[in-house]
Amino acid sequence: MDPRRTALLLVDLQEGTCGAEQASQRPGFHGLFRQRTLPALQRALALARRQGFEVIHTVIANLTADGRDRSLDYKRCGMGFPPGSAQTRVIAELAPLADELVLPKSSSSPFNSTALDYLLRNIGIERLIVAGILTDQCIDHTVKDAADRGYRVICLTDACMAESLERHQAALDCFRGYGELIAVAELAERLGRRGNLDGAAQRDAVAPQPSLNQDADA
Amino acid sequence: MDPRRTALLLVDLQEGTCGAEQASQRPGFHGLFRQRTLPALQRALALARRQGFEVIHTVIANLTADGRDRSLDYKRCGMGFPPGSAQTRVIAELAPLADELVLPKSSSSPFNSTALDYLLRNIGIERLIVAGILTDQCIDHTVKDAADRGYRVICLTDACMAESLERHQAALDCFRGYGELIAVAELAERLGRRGNLDGAAQRDAVAPQPSLNQDADA
Amino acid sequence: MDPRRTALLLVDLQEGTCGAEQASQRPGFHGLFRQRTLPALQRALALARRQGFEVIHTVIANLTADGRDRSLDYKRCGMGFPPGSAQTRVIAELAPLADELVLPKSSSSPFNSTALDYLLRNIGIERLIVAGILTDQCIDHTVKDAADRGYRVICLTDACMAESLERHQAALDCFRGYGELIAVAELAERLGRRGNLDGAAQRDAVAPQPSLNQDADA
Amino acid sequence: MDPRRTALLLVDLQEGTCGAEQASQRPGFHGLFRQRTLPALQRALALARRQGFEVIHTVIANLTADGRDRSLDYKRCGMGFPPGSAQTRVIAELAPLADELVLPKSSSSPFNSTALDYLLRNIGIERLIVAGILTDQCIDHTVKDAADRGYRVICLTDACMAESLERHQAALDCFRGYGELIAVAELAERLGRRGNLDGAAQRDAVAPQPSLNQDADA
Repeated sequence: MDPRRTALLLVDLQEGTCGAEQASQRPGFHGLFRQRTLPALQRALALARRQGFEVIHTVIANLTADGRDRSLDYKRCGMGFPPGSAQTRVIAELAPLADELVLPKSSSSPFNSTALDYLLRNIGIERLIVAGILTDQCIDHTVKDAADRGYRVICLTDACMAESLERHQAALDCFRGYGELIAVAELAERLGRRGNLDGAAQRDAVAPQPSLNQDADA
Repeated sequence: MDPRRTALLLVDLQEGTCGAEQASQRPGFHGLFRQRTLPALQRALALARRQGFEVIHTVIANLTADGRDRSLDYKRCGMGFPPGSAQTRVIAELAPLADELVLPKSSSSPFNSTALDYLLRNIGIERLIVAGILTDQCIDHTVKDAADRGYRVICLTDACMAESLERHQAALDCFRGYGELIAVAELAERLGRRGNLDGAAQRDAVAPQPSLNQDADA
Repeated sequence: MDPRRTALLLVDLQEGTCGAEQASQRPGFHGLFRQRTLPALQRALALARRQGFEVIHTVIANLTADGRDRSLDYKRCGMGFPPGSAQTRVIAELAPLADELVLPKSSSSPFNSTALDYLLRNIGIERLIVAGILTDQCIDHTVKDAADRGYRVICLTDACMAESLERHQAALDCFRGYGELIAVAELAERLGRRGNLDGAAQRDAVAPQPSLNQDADA
Repeated sequence: MDPRRTALLLVDLQEGTCGAEQASQRPGFHGLFRQRTLPALQRALALARRQGFEVIHTVIANLTADGRDRSLDYKRCGMGFPPGSAQTRVIAELAPLADELVLPKSSSSPFNSTALDYLLRNIGIERLIVAGILTDQCIDHTVKDAADRGYRVICLTDACMAESLERHQAALDCFRGYGELIAVAELAERLGRRGNLDGAAQRDAVAPQPSLNQDADA
């Protein structure tokens, strides 16, 4: 697999969602994220850069001062951060390099509020590795949209998190049929030992038989 | 609320997914669907038609004989039914009326493989009532996409089903933040007694305060 | 060039726009179309089928009886034909074969009211050959949209027509920068003699130098 | 007409396309633009700001250093400017105010490479006033796409320009059927005297009769 056809998409890993301030506001999530998820994200990012994968970051950010450009859903929920505010910055541990795309988004799926699909096509991406937060919201939505739009999807399970471990795990079960769910260590193992991303079972082969359950070959 | 601005979207309720043949192939799902979900769907459909809501059906259907037009994900899973085949027909209990739209789809979210968003905008729809199958796949995806694209979403919980009750319930928790989750009886009550669809808590008011958790006001 | 990666797109060649009834309603256009454009279209269609190109037809057709699903622009102009009406049928001279896609559209560009882009991606199309009517409206729009979305575009100049030859010619000048403009005879020549679609000048090579005028290499 | 439902869209008016450097590179265009088009653009911008219209600027700008994110068409033509370069800056005469959107684009129509449609919907825009360059390329494409997507379109004819007056005029004839084509003075007159944007002939009324020619009521 050509590394130039693979992208790592890091979803909403910014000060306003998982920065230091969250320690007091959402201590349960903060603990989980810092101890379990962030180290896995750092390993995944290092791996992707070493391979020469395209790295793309999304951040929740309004484009206007009053957030009138946000989706109705984000207005209704009070979600969104002012353009240029500290809350829209990717956390320092995962800071973007100079030529990595950082896409402001104001919806659940980046496919709905950014030009992500257009950009991926132009760059020539065929495989999308997804990680970030929250597993049951933007991650679930991103994985499903990417599958619908023709990308081969890998979701890095230990590099995602929800408000609780229970929600995180339930969400993985919810979108299991839309891609491969593997840990970062498995990604490293595939890249290191075999030099390619395909799973042992060759699950990307197009199945000839109809089956009702999308999970059938997962 | 103007009834002409509301649509009922019935997702994938066709012979190939929930028709009589499923009794032998997927007995667990078939029992749940026939006993619990189908009666609720029939009530919802009757209500919507009585109110003059736009009614839109989606069915999983390829447009080409060999299914080459399907999403990569559906090819990979072996999902899809030949154009014009019995499997693509809406089940008789929910059969479309003459001027109800029936949209063939070949992806998880109808927003990704049909002109649904364009059609809803042209018709003037602002509120989308979603029901059908499977709760953790196409329903979850449809609810999230509709919320992202500016529709006020109501999901009829008892008129949706997954492969198991556990998956069904877990999925509802997964997308609870993206719209209102109510039973068909509650829909009937709102329409009958109060003549409008808004919940008691006026939850559609745009919240002024930022909050991280999309579920905050759900 | 793999024939399976090329599609011929025939735009709006239906009874309601260029059928026999137009002889009395739009005699000028009808004469031009029947004498000049239709023979070229027939040759192009035969060529495409012989090569095994994907053939896709669009027809202007509402999906609802009152046309409420049409774009605001089509409502405003009174454009549109009832679903299933004779006016929505591709004219007999260009009648679709069994497995050729026929997409109902209700906007100027098929990319805006159908799932065309999604279908082309799934089928694996990289090159789009465009022909049909009207040169300055749907054809211009289709060529520009196809170029924006990453397809290599060939427009068959003699297989397109506008309300007048002057408008036809002016439109060709308008979108010349977005693709290759060739006659059907040139297409036949390329396919017959050289067996591929690329122009002599290798104009599809990606130019290294910035230039302001999109027409520069046309 | 509520001013908050109207936007002025200024297309590609940046250093790299119409800045001072163009005087030597494209003297013909530069003369036309500076003498005829720029004054009209400045009047239109002042009018829009006074009315409280949303003002949105697009600029041709790559998001990556090597432009790999551009459309295939822009790669092929060598079109595009590095992110952050002087060439991507809106010219000083039309400099954006603090809360005006500036959208980087890498395709002909801003609807194809930016989230413009999503943003307009969220902001609540129903009417789009279009001006900028080039009349036969991005302007024609933007007007047609906006009409397809349900916006009422006004194109300010004297605030647009092509490489030559002939191309400019031919393009106006090409897309005349997709919106209202008026001069900036007419816009000012409508806003000043009558306080609304609707033309005398009430041309936005939805026509009841089918007609083949989109130009019929233009």
